[in-house]
Amino acid sequence: MAMTVPDLRADVRSWLQIGLWCCLGFFTFELVIRSWPRPGSERHSNYLLSAAGLIDVLALLPIPVALLVGVPPETAWLLASLWLLKLTNFAPGLSLLGRVISLEAKSLESVLVIFLIVLLLAGMALHVLERAGQPAKFGSLPLSLWWAVTTLTTTGYGDAVPETFLGRVIAAMVMICGLGVFGLLTGILATGFTAEHRRRDFIRNWDLVTRVPFLRNLNPAAIVELTRMLRRLDLAERTVVVRRGRPGDCMYFIVSGEVEVQLEPRPIRLGPGSFFGEIALLEGGPRTATVVTTIPSTFLILEVSDFRAFTALNPDLARAVEAEATRRASATMGKTPEGQ
Amino acid sequence: MAMTVPDLRADVRSWLQIGLWCCLGFFTFELVIRSWPRPGSERHSNYLLSAAGLIDVLALLPIPVALLVGVPPETAWLLASLWLLKLTNFAPGLSLLGRVISLEAKSLESVLVIFLIVLLLAGMALHVLERAGQPAKFGSLPLSLWWAVTTLTTTGYGDAVPETFLGRVIAAMVMICGLGVFGLLTGILATGFTAEHRRRDFIRNWDLVTRVPFLRNLNPAAIVELTRMLRRLDLAERTVVVRRGRPGDCMYFIVSGEVEVQLEPRPIRLGPGSFFGEIALLEGGPRTATVVTTIPSTFLILEVSDFRAFTALNPDLARAVEAEATRRASATMGKTPEGQ
Amino acid sequence: MAMTVPDLRADVRSWLQIGLWCCLGFFTFELVIRSWPRPGSERHSNYLLSAAGLIDVLALLPIPVALLVGVPPETAWLLASLWLLKLTNFAPGLSLLGRVISLEAKSLESVLVIFLIVLLLAGMALHVLERAGQPAKFGSLPLSLWWAVTTLTTTGYGDAVPETFLGRVIAAMVMICGLGVFGLLTGILATGFTAEHRRRDFIRNWDLVTRVPFLRNLNPAAIVELTRMLRRLDLAERTVVVRRGRPGDCMYFIVSGEVEVQLEPRPIRLGPGSFFGEIALLEGGPRTATVVTTIPSTFLILEVSDFRAFTALNPDLARAVEAEATRRASATMGKTPEGQ
Amino acid sequence: MAMTVPDLRADVRSWLQIGLWCCLGFFTFELVIRSWPRPGSERHSNYLLSAAGLIDVLALLPIPVALLVGVPPETAWLLASLWLLKLTNFAPGLSLLGRVISLEAKSLESVLVIFLIVLLLAGMALHVLERAGQPAKFGSLPLSLWWAVTTLTTTGYGDAVPETFLGRVIAAMVMICGLGVFGLLTGILATGFTAEHRRRDFIRNWDLVTRVPFLRNLNPAAIVELTRMLRRLDLAERTVVVRRGRPGDCMYFIVSGEVEVQLEPRPIRLGPGSFFGEIALLEGGPRTATVVTTIPSTFLILEVSDFRAFTALNPDLARAVEAEATRRASATMGKTPEGQ
Repeated sequence: MAMTVPDLRADVRSWLQIGLWCCLGFFTFELVIRSWPRPGSERHSNYLLSAAGLIDVLALLPIPVALLVGVPPETAWLLASLWLLKLTNFAPGLSLLGRVISLEAKSLESVLVIFLIVLLLAGMALHVLERAGQPAKFGSLPLSLWWAVTTLTTTGYGDAVPETFLGRVIAAMVMICGLGVFGLLTGILATGFTAEHRRRDFIRNWDLVTRVPFLRNLNPAAIVELTRMLRRLDLAERTVVVRRGRPGDCMYFIVSGEVEVQLEPRPIRLGPGSFFGEIALLEGGPRTATVVTTIPSTFLILEVSDFRAFTALNPDLARAVEAEATRRASATMGKTPEGQ
Repeated sequence: MAMTVPDLRADVRSWLQIGLWCCLGFFTFELVIRSWPRPGSERHSNYLLSAAGLIDVLALLPIPVALLVGVPPETAWLLASLWLLKLTNFAPGLSLLGRVISLEAKSLESVLVIFLIVLLLAGMALHVLERAGQPAKFGSLPLSLWWAVTTLTTTGYGDAVPETFLGRVIAAMVMICGLGVFGLLTGILATGFTAEHRRRDFIRNWDLVTRVPFLRNLNPAAIVELTRMLRRLDLAERTVVVRRGRPGDCMYFIVSGEVEVQLEPRPIRLGPGSFFGEIALLEGGPRTATVVTTIPSTFLILEVSDFRAFTALNPDLARAVEAEATRRASATMGKTPEGQ
Repeated sequence: MAMTVPDLRADVRSWLQIGLWCCLGFFTFELVIRSWPRPGSERHSNYLLSAAGLIDVLALLPIPVALLVGVPPETAWLLASLWLLKLTNFAPGLSLLGRVISLEAKSLESVLVIFLIVLLLAGMALHVLERAGQPAKFGSLPLSLWWAVTTLTTTGYGDAVPETFLGRVIAAMVMICGLGVFGLLTGILATGFTAEHRRRDFIRNWDLVTRVPFLRNLNPAAIVELTRMLRRLDLAERTVVVRRGRPGDCMYFIVSGEVEVQLEPRPIRLGPGSFFGEIALLEGGPRTATVVTTIPSTFLILEVSDFRAFTALNPDLARAVEAEATRRASATMGKTPEGQ
Repeated sequence: MAMTVPDLRADVRSWLQIGLWCCLGFFTFELVIRSWPRPGSERHSNYLLSAAGLIDVLALLPIPVALLVGVPPETAWLLASLWLLKLTNFAPGLSLLGRVISLEAKSLESVLVIFLIVLLLAGMALHVLERAGQPAKFGSLPLSLWWAVTTLTTTGYGDAVPETFLGRVIAAMVMICGLGVFGLLTGILATGFTAEHRRRDFIRNWDLVTRVPFLRNLNPAAIVELTRMLRRLDLAERTVVVRRGRPGDCMYFIVSGEVEVQLEPRPIRLGPGSFFGEIALLEGGPRTATVVTTIPSTFLILEVSDFRAFTALNPDLARAVEAEATRRASATMGKTPEGQ
């Protein structure tokens, strides 16, 4: 995409054009398929009007239109960069960002008002102060506002710089305001993003927790607390989950899939609803066995700090985990003589 | 406003002036009306002395004064940008910002002291180090301070750049201090803004919660917790609140207004104090019906994550919601045969 | 101080010098007084060795030393800017900042290590890539590091700019790393500052709370919670605390001082341990009376949102406040006929 | 390292080379030792494949390879700056940062996607708008992207500045987007870093708390709460922990080591499991005695604000501390006559 512009040899250029035409064709085909009216369904109109559909149309249409209108091809193909918008469908964080912005709209709006007021006042002041000395740079209000924007965002190109004493004092205040505006913006976005993220994780983890019988039977308040602590982990098959001898800092609940605990005489297989890695948490030592997934698996991870905080308030879990650990240890002990 | 400055044709200019005079007249009229002494009331003096009144006066007076004093009209009309200050009355966030600044005054003050100390020390050091090599840029302390401000705020115009080795080392430290000062400022403003925002939302939501009988009857601790979780939503009439088939991520309590649940045989209308959207939360599926407002309505929204966390600790709400849902479902079932 | 440098007329300059000598004399005198050995006390040595004493010495000594050594007076007097350090004794936030830095030393250190590593790698890479094209700007590693510092802190003077394609790609990555380093620094400082601030407020408020009998008699857990919610307010005498007719958003506990509630027939005076402003919180209306301090007073403020959250969990306070409000209202009622 | 580049005299240069060869030799030796296969152990292969081993190899290999390939020595030795990477083994914060980045990968990824989209759209727009006026700076998409990167990160070199009106409006929007992206990045990294730090501190403190019998006997929920409040402090021998007469703001639990409380008649020694500094917290006055370590010691510090908040909810600790304080006071009283 970026190659369309610089001075290239003619053949590279033509190959690129062919590639671009192919992409255009493929995307058009994809769009037609997706939006094709299916009998008995009323979703096709939805697709073209949905956010994803609009982006697809927006990415496709401009190029042929530009070529038809007579724009030179070099310029027209630049519109291919709009294809990048299709990426947004794959970035889950973007919808999150959208929600944060809509939720915090009022705060963001008032920061924007502050931004605009400082901008206009600073632009006006500098225009009055500097237009005599630097007519080319502060001679009109728009020029002056351009300076104000670069300064307030602390970008500071340096193409227009105040030269009078008062102008510089005001510029210094604008910069400090810039830091403040920046701080507010950061605070609002960061707080909103964090809260929204936590909410989304909670919902996803809740579904996973209810699939583990061992956790599902806790009392509701404990489940809520645990849902906030757990973290999801997806692993491919034949991946090492914990390695023997490494320090243990968390335990694992199996939501789906299967793992193999590589114990000495004979490995044990654990399926959905089981847990492992609890010995390191209970006794504080290194991992006693290597655990490997046999099929693609999903786990819920409980960190050692959360485990301790949680079991202190909910001794049931600790007791249950300990009972299971003891049971498993004695089973292994019992098996070991047989196995050898 | 911005049009007054660039090179314009004479007729555009004169039209603009007429427009500006009209605005000036209107604002004066508005100010006079608002501050007119009403018999039996002592509020008129208050208005002129209040923040809003002061801003009004500040936005109006300078222009006639400037014209009388003999300032050329182009400059005088620049003062019209002060009218922008009147916007502040409409931005609720500004009063919030004012409160944050007054509450965090001590923290902000000490950050400012740090800023000033670093500024002066850096300015002095660079003046000593660079004045020999660049007298035009570091030859006096104010010039040197100008450099220090642009550097400490990480604006970096590049009009004055240290050239000695030691000067550059100090400049690097100033930049890092700048990041630190920035971080502190961001932290203080962001924390204060977030806390103040939450407080304001709490008060507003509290009033709304007490208007929903269903919520008002919970125990006080639960009301407080719920008030922190709920979010307000205002919708115009004939707006779709939830759409059938979409994933459900929250439930709605009607504070005021009315909605129509578009059920198959016959739509149901729900008034203030009712709730809807709970089925998606209880069963986790998509929305089962489209809901549309009939008049402008205000809702309180409870997210699914908050609903689960809350009902785990307060099973009463879950039971009540479930009972209502069952009642409504059976009512619909009962009606369906009749309706068809 | 700043006036010593620019081109000034000789008489202004000499007046300034006299002023500066006076200041120097005064500070020396002050230092001698403070550090004079008092009989029977061993604190004098402490003073010179304490932070405040060291700053005093550091601010005084350099100037005479510089003059004796033969430095030209203009330069020597620049050291007067060190007097600014004495300001630090008045900024309570600085000791706070010091504590934050010492508590978060490990985090800050690791951010600094990241900063240095990125700096050196970027400096080295750019030196290799750009030295052929721009020997004056990237010809040596220190020059290259100077560029890296200005870029990594996003200051961007623009005095040295990479021109090769690869150099610019690396520069872009350095800028993004800069944003990241910045973010970490901001996060660490902001979190630490906020936590430390809250801790300090808690200790101060605790002392004040224990002076209000009404609050002291709550159960300990409630006191802790309340201490976190209250905010201190110091007002001079004859200052309006609440104004009649304004919306009420908080109530006040008097820690020390006295206020006059300007009720209609006869004003009431309230002393330490009393509270006022509770009617607006209980009933949600505007202030019913203006309250003015008679002597300098200290209050503890409880916001309406905190009041509601707190009383929901601790109904005792609400009942006590309500009882007092009723008692006061009936007393006023009873007095009114008498008063007129 | 940095000395290899500038114009130096030949002898300094040769000495430097010898020094560098020595370092190279030492590091090679160190690497060989560490990775030497030990009989009966399978860890040697692990070392070379572990993160630390990879860094060691990465720091060593490039230099000889470069020299062999025929790169001029000045350039080859620049690779010595890779030795800096070995520092990372000593910075505990780096592994923390690594974990934060892996945990927040999804959020960071979506911020990056936003960054890239804004970048490409801005680059394309500016290329179209400015290429006519400034072909040297915006003539190709890569050039235009370079401008977009410097602007979006608010670095603002000023080497390429838009000159058309529309170009500047877009540039202003890019700068504001830059602030937003920055804010998101800061928020994600700061939140993640803080959470991870707290988790790590919790685990470390837990181990220490369980070594103090006095704390270990509290109920589990109290231990969890206390573990979150305590802070670790390591001091060398003969260091003053608290000084008589200073205001007291925390109490100390001795995890390991020994201190001497310098009481008047005869100093007392306290060993692991003891605590001191509680009088200032219980009574609010200054420290009553100086305490000095006799051997290197580890303490857990409980701030006064946390002490009050904790004891309000857990009166047991307060009672126990008070009982111990009384016992100690009476013991001292009893000893004083004897001692003299």
